[in-house]
Amino acid sequence: MANRDRTIENLIEQLNRLPGIGPKSAERLAFHLLRIDTEEALQLARAIEQVRAAVKTCSRCSNLDAQDPCSICMDGSRDATMLLVVEDPREIARFEDVGYKGRYHVLGGRLSQLEGIRPEDLTTSQLLARVQKDKPAEVCLATNPDLEGEGTARVLAERLVPLGCKVTRLARGLPAGSSIAQVSASILADAIEGRRSLS
Amino acid sequence: MANRDRTIENLIEQLNRLPGIGPKSAERLAFHLLRIDTEEALQLARAIEQVRAAVKTCSRCSNLDAQDPCSICMDGSRDATMLLVVEDPREIARFEDVGYKGRYHVLGGRLSQLEGIRPEDLTTSQLLARVQKDKPAEVCLATNPDLEGEGTARVLAERLVPLGCKVTRLARGLPAGSSIAQVSASILADAIEGRRSLS
Repeated sequence: MANRDRTIENLIEQLNRLPGIGPKSAERLAFHLLRIDTEEALQLARAIEQVRAAVKTCSRCSNLDAQDPCSICMDGSRDATMLLVVEDPREIARFEDVGYKGRYHVLGGRLSQLEGIRPEDLTTSQLLARVQKDKPAEVCLATNPDLEGEGTARVLAERLVPLGCKVTRLARGLPAGSSIAQVSASILADAIEGRRSLS
Repeated sequence: MANRDRTIENLIEQLNRLPGIGPKSAERLAFHLLRIDTEEALQLARAIEQVRAAVKTCSRCSNLDAQDPCSICMDGSRDATMLLVVEDPREIARFEDVGYKGRYHVLGGRLSQLEGIRPEDLTTSQLLARVQKDKPAEVCLATNPDLEGEGTARVLAERLVPLGCKVTRLARGLPAGSSIAQVSASILADAIEGRRSLS
């Protein structure tokens, strides 16, 4: 780009590498970072540096935390009989928010034929080793309720069931607050199939 | 957030302060920055630091550049008889891309009653002083073709016309490549009003 400063171009390029940030958004963000107080812009730079300096992957559960093993794995007050398997570490915060008190295992993704992601690309062997060693009463496969999440759960269940633990999956059904007139056919089909007895 | 590292929370907060980045996007970006190579993440941090260390606001035209006056103001080969007034420095790249060879003046925004932005909040007095001193033959008010951009152009034109220069506005009409069946009524009204003679 003629007459545009090289450092601005570089910042736009770096921002453009982020997921969901196209060239136009990257340009808008770069000029925002130029317009605001220097201190405010540098706070973001420092936040990135600090997070990369401080945060480690937990060698037990693959959660991200300032300590390894992570603070959840080290918390003796948590229910060690329950292991919740998630795709991504950020999903842990969702379960914490709703008061889940068991332990976690982070897969680091989901199986995908399309993207060529196989069991050995995830923390599958660590999960199996952990279940064999710790013998939790229940392993809940909390992968996402979509095609690849379901497929991942099915593959993991095949390997976990022989280890003798109870293997579960999160409930599927009507989202709280939804309207039956509005939800999709597949949601409604889930809701019928998973109906609960009140009697 | 229980059990989520403080530095992760801080990074999410900093990202959430960026325009157009909501809490969910901020979380997604933060975990992306944790997942990629450290070096790649730090490149973004350094790009922010470098841009804030290197880039200055041009004291003549308010463009952003590594030098003050900026490289465009210092380029003697450019047409000094033409001054293009833009709202935002990033718009300069658009005009450069299409081969504009005159000079620029960056307003730093547009007048807005709603947001309480008055002429003295923009670089209005610098523009008027510059026009009086440099006496360009033409000042083209290239604010955006919307309500506030038009209003800004009108207010500036009132002050520029008495200074004896020709004051122009960018053409409004059909966007190149559009289809008359698809464009909005206001675009078509502009196109009729601004019709050009071929005879």
